[in-house]
Amino acid sequence: MEIPVIRSVFENNEKLAQKVRAQMQARHILTLNVISSPGAGKTTLLERTLADLSPELKMAVIEGDLQTDNDAQRIAKSGVQVVQINTEGGCHLESSMILSCLEKLDLDGLDILFIENVGNLVCPVEFDLGEDYKVALLSVTEGDDKPEKYPLLFQLAKVMVLNKVDLLPYVSFDVERAVGFAKRHNRDLKVFEVSCTKALGLNEWYNWLRSAREAVR
Amino acid sequence: MEIPVIRSVFENNEKLAQKVRAQMQARHILTLNVISSPGAGKTTLLERTLADLSPELKMAVIEGDLQTDNDAQRIAKSGVQVVQINTEGGCHLESSMILSCLEKLDLDGLDILFIENVGNLVCPVEFDLGEDYKVALLSVTEGDDKPEKYPLLFQLAKVMVLNKVDLLPYVSFDVERAVGFAKRHNRDLKVFEVSCTKALGLNEWYNWLRSAREAVR
Repeated sequence: MEIPVIRSVFENNEKLAQKVRAQMQARHILTLNVISSPGAGKTTLLERTLADLSPELKMAVIEGDLQTDNDAQRIAKSGVQVVQINTEGGCHLESSMILSCLEKLDLDGLDILFIENVGNLVCPVEFDLGEDYKVALLSVTEGDDKPEKYPLLFQLAKVMVLNKVDLLPYVSFDVERAVGFAKRHNRDLKVFEVSCTKALGLNEWYNWLRSAREAVR
Repeated sequence: MEIPVIRSVFENNEKLAQKVRAQMQARHILTLNVISSPGAGKTTLLERTLADLSPELKMAVIEGDLQTDNDAQRIAKSGVQVVQINTEGGCHLESSMILSCLEKLDLDGLDILFIENVGNLVCPVEFDLGEDYKVALLSVTEGDDKPEKYPLLFQLAKVMVLNKVDLLPYVSFDVERAVGFAKRHNRDLKVFEVSCTKALGLNEWYNWLRSAREAVR
């Protein structure tokens, strides 16, 4: 008798991630998986980006949270399509959830799909969602040692958005040190220093989004 | 043929947590499991507490991190015993790790053992480490919605330390709203508003530690 072997959770996730990726590539949609600690400013970054780039780019958002649809409600105010995933306590998103969301989104003519992961610097990093790139968000209030202490995200990300730079005068945070840790294993990491609440430094992030979107056409 | 069933990870964790608890109760040591997002200030809270209470209480620390012993090095400067756990990418501590640490600590005459969990608002909450109480640390820079969005920690914690209140003038954070969410399912939650870097509001936290320590004698 052959004993069935349950595929590992990672193997199954990877298979479904490739399905997401194939769909998005066929449609030339830039797909970004945004990962950070709780409260680093993922939703605020998206609110700003949607408000400023909506005239030129068609965007949609998948919102991941343990529970509540607070963030999806915030995103919905921008007028873009948004789907909420509630993980019911789960600490990360998986590609099966993204596949279900794609059925609920009108993908026609979409330029960029943002996936806002659960606020967590550890678990979300290990699950490919079929994205083109991971975007790491770090806020200066978290301390400049975070890329050293939670290295995998910063190794795998294409971009690091350093948020809340308006608070630099009030906290102990050495930007060079943080960026140095982040680039130690990822020399090509792009770093954007921004304040989403004060609308500082966002143009470089927007220019990167434009060029990354062009590259998947 | 009987097929062996592997005990669930939670069941095994709970069994070893009871071993930790029995050892600590027999020795009348107050054991606290400190949980927060990355960068909320767990290590800084411990540094302050160790510096201020060492003259009257004998304390030790177990430091949990994915990698590096940065935080253990910071704690060691206070002169108290510290043991580092590196989870090698793991997102939470488990009771088996605490049991191993207890072998390396001199527990004689110890009043309080602090366990600093991995920075993560989700996974650590689900693993009993044999502590008397969980201590939730939240910083005002993370946003006042966090107890609503990550409710389990705030439901299970005995204490919520609200840190970085010196930054309240520069961020949008409604203390009443945050405390209201946290207390919705945990009416007896004790809340201490502090700034660890500016040494504000710490006396009430210290008084609570003293009385909790008395209660396990």
